Amino acid sequence: MRHALVLQTDFGISDGAVSAMYGVANSVDSSIRIFDLTHDIPPYNIWEASYRLLQTVSYWPEGTVFVSVVDPGVGSERRSIVVRTADNKYIITPDNGTLTHVKEFSGIAEVRLLDETKNRLPNSGESYTFHGRDIYAFTGARLASGTIAFEDIGPPATLDTIVELPLSKPTRSNNSITGIIEILDVRFGNLWTNIHRNLLKEMYIEYGDRLEVTIDNGTRQVYKNIMTFGRSFADSLVGEPLLYVNSLDNLGVAINQGSFAKAYRVEAGTNWSLTLQKVNKKLT
Amino acid sequence: MRHALVLQTDFGISDGAVSAMYGVANSVDSSIRIFDLTHDIPPYNIWEASYRLLQTVSYWPEGTVFVSVVDPGVGSERRSIVVRTADNKYIITPDNGTLTHVKEFSGIAEVRLLDETKNRLPNSGESYTFHGRDIYAFTGARLASGTIAFEDIGPPATLDTIVELPLSKPTRSNNSITGIIEILDVRFGNLWTNIHRNLLKEMYIEYGDRLEVTIDNGTRQVYKNIMTFGRSFADSLVGEPLLYVNSLDNLGVAINQGSFAKAYRVEAGTNWSLTLQKVNKKLT
Amino acid sequence: MRHALVLQTDFGISDGAVSAMYGVANSVDSSIRIFDLTHDIPPYNIWEASYRLLQTVSYWPEGTVFVSVVDPGVGSERRSIVVRTADNKYIITPDNGTLTHVKEFSGIAEVRLLDETKNRLPNSGESYTFHGRDIYAFTGARLASGTIAFEDIGPPATLDTIVELPLSKPTRSNNSITGIIEILDVRFGNLWTNIHRNLLKEMYIEYGDRLEVTIDNGTRQVYKNIMTFGRSFADSLVGEPLLYVNSLDNLGVAINQGSFAKAYRVEAGTNWSLTLQKVNKKLT
Repeated sequence: MRHALVLQTDFGISDGAVSAMYGVANSVDSSIRIFDLTHDIPPYNIWEASYRLLQTVSYWPEGTVFVSVVDPGVGSERRSIVVRTADNKYIITPDNGTLTHVKEFSGIAEVRLLDETKNRLPNSGESYTFHGRDIYAFTGARLASGTIAFEDIGPPATLDTIVELPLSKPTRSNNSITGIIEILDVRFGNLWTNIHRNLLKEMYIEYGDRLEVTIDNGTRQVYKNIMTFGRSFADSLVGEPLLYVNSLDNLGVAINQGSFAKAYRVEAGTNWSLTLQKVNKKLT
Repeated sequence: MRHALVLQTDFGISDGAVSAMYGVANSVDSSIRIFDLTHDIPPYNIWEASYRLLQTVSYWPEGTVFVSVVDPGVGSERRSIVVRTADNKYIITPDNGTLTHVKEFSGIAEVRLLDETKNRLPNSGESYTFHGRDIYAFTGARLASGTIAFEDIGPPATLDTIVELPLSKPTRSNNSITGIIEILDVRFGNLWTNIHRNLLKEMYIEYGDRLEVTIDNGTRQVYKNIMTFGRSFADSLVGEPLLYVNSLDNLGVAINQGSFAKAYRVEAGTNWSLTLQKVNKKLT
Repeated sequence: MRHALVLQTDFGISDGAVSAMYGVANSVDSSIRIFDLTHDIPPYNIWEASYRLLQTVSYWPEGTVFVSVVDPGVGSERRSIVVRTADNKYIITPDNGTLTHVKEFSGIAEVRLLDETKNRLPNSGESYTFHGRDIYAFTGARLASGTIAFEDIGPPATLDTIVELPLSKPTRSNNSITGIIEILDVRFGNLWTNIHRNLLKEMYIEYGDRLEVTIDNGTRQVYKNIMTFGRSFADSLVGEPLLYVNSLDNLGVAINQGSFAKAYRVEAGTNWSLTLQKVNKKLT
């Protein structure tokens, strides 16, 4: 049975690189279905590649094959691996941290090392710089089409050998939580934190509550104000800041129809902390 | 019988949002064909979403299901609707003006209210901010795949209840027409007006005629000059301004291989008027 | 048998133009598979369109139909043609230089003139400005779906009538080669030259060799320094400049994880020359 092949890269779609990958996949099997996760991962940004996989993999059917190529170490000794996730999707990627979020939050069941000598587009042996086309798209298409099985890709490895980026966890006291701004929802200017909906529940924070939000970039306080925790943007006025639960079930910060990130020059990263403090009484 | 599913959003394609929608659609039926209209509608720009539907819907086969998600009111009381167009395509969208152009210029035959409780991705009940994934892509895929019929989506509504944005119509005198610049062909810097080819015919304007073009932004005159009405850009010299009929059969203004919009800082909107005046005799 | 249809344009994907082309293709045959090469060719940049075809066509299966629409002369007397390449792909394009690289480097076997009167979307006769939709996508879909054969598109023409852009060839002396920077790998800031791997072999240049690189923009020297010829980026330190062979088997210049183009304000074009000089002894 054929499965979908889903590609993610940092190549952009302005030249022919992604189309060459599609061509290779079509040449393996002209009936497989190929889709994009995104090709706009900022160059070499492994963290974001990892996050985007978490954001999408669970919504695809079992058996779907993801190929993620954000590969600053192409041509080095870094391993290439294929994993089967806990919910039975496959991800093929350089082993450089790209699996950090999926491993931590949705789970990986099995790992295999990709043997680059036997999983390579025929006659591509002299090319050392485009593994996305010559190795990853080729192998992804062969797995998605059923030409090869997961086990054929290479020998097994243990889960603990997977390279992981450091993940920060929120800390909480009696009436406050501090997390980090993990990533920006760039297009809309919203901040996405690592504070999960369940933590808010544990602290009895409910829709309509007003909370004090402090944002610090490691060297100075960037923002401090009180805002409402809303079910959706529609619970606030246009132009008003708000707290909400985003599509990954984490706390987000937004300005309704504006850009919070631009308004206060907020960025994302482990040095960008956000503290949520319960205000004594509801003001609404 | 399965039909194509075509997605339009203001989400961009730089993160995982659109891919999550694709994943949901594939999970409904892994054999339906999914395409994009565009995901680059400027955030919250309902007018442009409406215009892009007019630009494309008629070129797709009968039965095609369009899902358009430009939804500043997500989570509010705004309705979600599905319509059958006069030429038998389906459009699923928040009822916020997105159907303005299609209703006016190509016609809508039937409307149904989307019942959000029964048309929702299983287990997505706690998410209030990503209807594009949880409701629209899910329902669009079920309709496109034939899992549900148009009638199953919800109860009927009357056409006059559809929310519409104000549309401006051209006015004409004996030897002039005034319309508005509805939208820019941003990439090429061309102006697209709401003056239809038929109006030009009524005024006996023919290819090769020279016409005086005046552009006003509501507070001042931005441009006034004479140019030729050409069959295509090839009828003018490189760098020369020209009038032409665009791919929607409306009057356009361009600089051949340049950007008229940038050259004269012209934008689009109801305050941007363009007047076309016949010049007494042909100068060519 | 149905073949893939692959579209390339300079239209961008922010409006409905490409989706209208997809709609037309789906209306011809709702089961053909449609893909993108890229739609981000800079407006009117025929050179880049030609280069992107070379970069991708060979990776697609035999029978694939490419439609390339970068067409500053739309509506003029310029010819529309369809070619069969030496490796049995089809390309439909305005005859304006778009086939320069494919003709020179991978070869064209047959040419036919596209008869625009019989290869046109029904009822599109009054539109003169969107041949991408009305003629090229329509004809491409008919060819890809097997509705028409190559021979049905129009009468044959000879190969020497194809319009070509001037191509520059590298020149070499005893211990140096001079080529041009043909194009930028914009996203990563790398320079792609027209110096083929085979030329390096002829000069006995090997991985690990150190070479003096001089870049000149026709009016002044822009860069002169010694760098290492590496198998891949991994052979150099992060931030270090390097020479490598790119995915088209030509010499490239990069800064590992940086942008060489931005660092030294290098652009591409026939006036941008690059000279490679062997250094007397290996310093590594």
